[in-house]
Amino acid sequence: MGKTQILDGNVVSEAVKEELKPRIEALKEKGTVPCLATILVGEDPSSATYVKMKGNACERLGIQSKRIHLAEDTTTEQLLKVIEELNKDTAVHGILLQHPVPKQIDERKAFEAIAIEKDVDGVTSWGYGQTALGFGIYPSCTPAAIMQIMNFYGIQAEGKHAVVIGRSPILGKPVSALLLNANATVTTCHSYTKNLPEIVAQADILVAAVGKPEFIKGEWLKEGAVVLDAGYNPGNIGDVEYESCFKKASAITPVPGGVGPVTISMLLKHTVDAAERG
Amino acid sequence: MGKTQILDGNVVSEAVKEELKPRIEALKEKGTVPCLATILVGEDPSSATYVKMKGNACERLGIQSKRIHLAEDTTTEQLLKVIEELNKDTAVHGILLQHPVPKQIDERKAFEAIAIEKDVDGVTSWGYGQTALGFGIYPSCTPAAIMQIMNFYGIQAEGKHAVVIGRSPILGKPVSALLLNANATVTTCHSYTKNLPEIVAQADILVAAVGKPEFIKGEWLKEGAVVLDAGYNPGNIGDVEYESCFKKASAITPVPGGVGPVTISMLLKHTVDAAERG
Repeated sequence: MGKTQILDGNVVSEAVKEELKPRIEALKEKGTVPCLATILVGEDPSSATYVKMKGNACERLGIQSKRIHLAEDTTTEQLLKVIEELNKDTAVHGILLQHPVPKQIDERKAFEAIAIEKDVDGVTSWGYGQTALGFGIYPSCTPAAIMQIMNFYGIQAEGKHAVVIGRSPILGKPVSALLLNANATVTTCHSYTKNLPEIVAQADILVAAVGKPEFIKGEWLKEGAVVLDAGYNPGNIGDVEYESCFKKASAITPVPGGVGPVTISMLLKHTVDAAERG
Repeated sequence: MGKTQILDGNVVSEAVKEELKPRIEALKEKGTVPCLATILVGEDPSSATYVKMKGNACERLGIQSKRIHLAEDTTTEQLLKVIEELNKDTAVHGILLQHPVPKQIDERKAFEAIAIEKDVDGVTSWGYGQTALGFGIYPSCTPAAIMQIMNFYGIQAEGKHAVVIGRSPILGKPVSALLLNANATVTTCHSYTKNLPEIVAQADILVAAVGKPEFIKGEWLKEGAVVLDAGYNPGNIGDVEYESCFKKASAITPVPGGVGPVTISMLLKHTVDAAERG
């Protein structure tokens, strides 16, 4: 067994930010301040923390953060109105609606209302379709982060068998699509999958996006697999059992400090991209 | 070995058409004649034949067929203008642009120009995204046909391992998405896939959408697999080697008379759906 490489997301994240700094400066010289509008609905403490982290990350880099906080009892119609206004606001380049929203809101309808040119978080069906067909400009940020980590560390997808566990609209499905477009053979697994360990055992690249703490066991892995853990469960615990997976993997993302920080950097990058596109 | 079931597409196609007849009558009683506009660009004989088959199938069922034939040297701009006019024409419920178009045309741009509410052939990225996220109304017709055949013959996807060979925007990708949404574990393979026979050997459901005659061999199959052949190569030859696959499969679509006729029926169904939506 060789040494397992730790895929440090903070290093990748810093590299992305360094690349963005001169682009943000150039935009400001031309009179444009990149601006991300974040919408938080209600008082869910995790959501509040995530939105705050994203807003703060913007501001540290010189991206304007327009923070909108709506009441817990906001209706779908009220939220749609806010999104419509942000769509029209030429000073706003990107719109992020923090997921999940309170239960009375039609989340999909709200996501779909975001103008595609401002969908920097990659939540619309149209953006998903463009990404899957190979010409999307703002893939969902966590899938984009996974690809960024692979690119940064020189991990090739082409010809590899990638196994994705999870099929959510913003994670499992788009990361499957991106890996397929990168010429991996892709198997997408989920709660109905039978013999999951047998399928995981075939993975050259394993993406864990299942949302269950320490669900994936090292004993399931092929020796030398690359493990990308997009899980982020309470207590900073990933979807993979880190100790046992570390022993089998050739490379692995830690939690925290793996996919998470790169996800935020992808959001910043997409916002700068959007500002450059005008 | 049990008897292999032949999944007769003509039977499925007729059942779909029977279900459409009273719906078309009801529309006509209200003064609406469902109308599909077909656009053929250039003189490719196969494309001309396909468009003609589709137009004739419409007319036999009482759907109006508006047939547009553009010259071989049509530009992208000229084609976009035709599509724009059809988008605005309230008498037209569905628009089909026959693929492939001559080389000077930006096919993707032309597909994307079709209004989503008239995209009955399921070629736009937005339509694809909606389908993949589970709320599409007009999936691409061949993938829709494959699901229709499975439903008709009572073949369950849930919990099965489906292997799709091919990843085109109108076949491999959307059929993978539909099977995933039907709770199959889905592996999508393509030209970069290594050890294809080993992966095919895991398939409970195999979809051949590779465009190579008799590419898939019976010896690769798991005993009892369901084989859906979406290939349609010159000389009415499918993507699977029929004789050898028939011996291993529990059910198989013939070529011709399998997926093909149901594909056209799905186009008719989507056109009627669109007319009903107004």
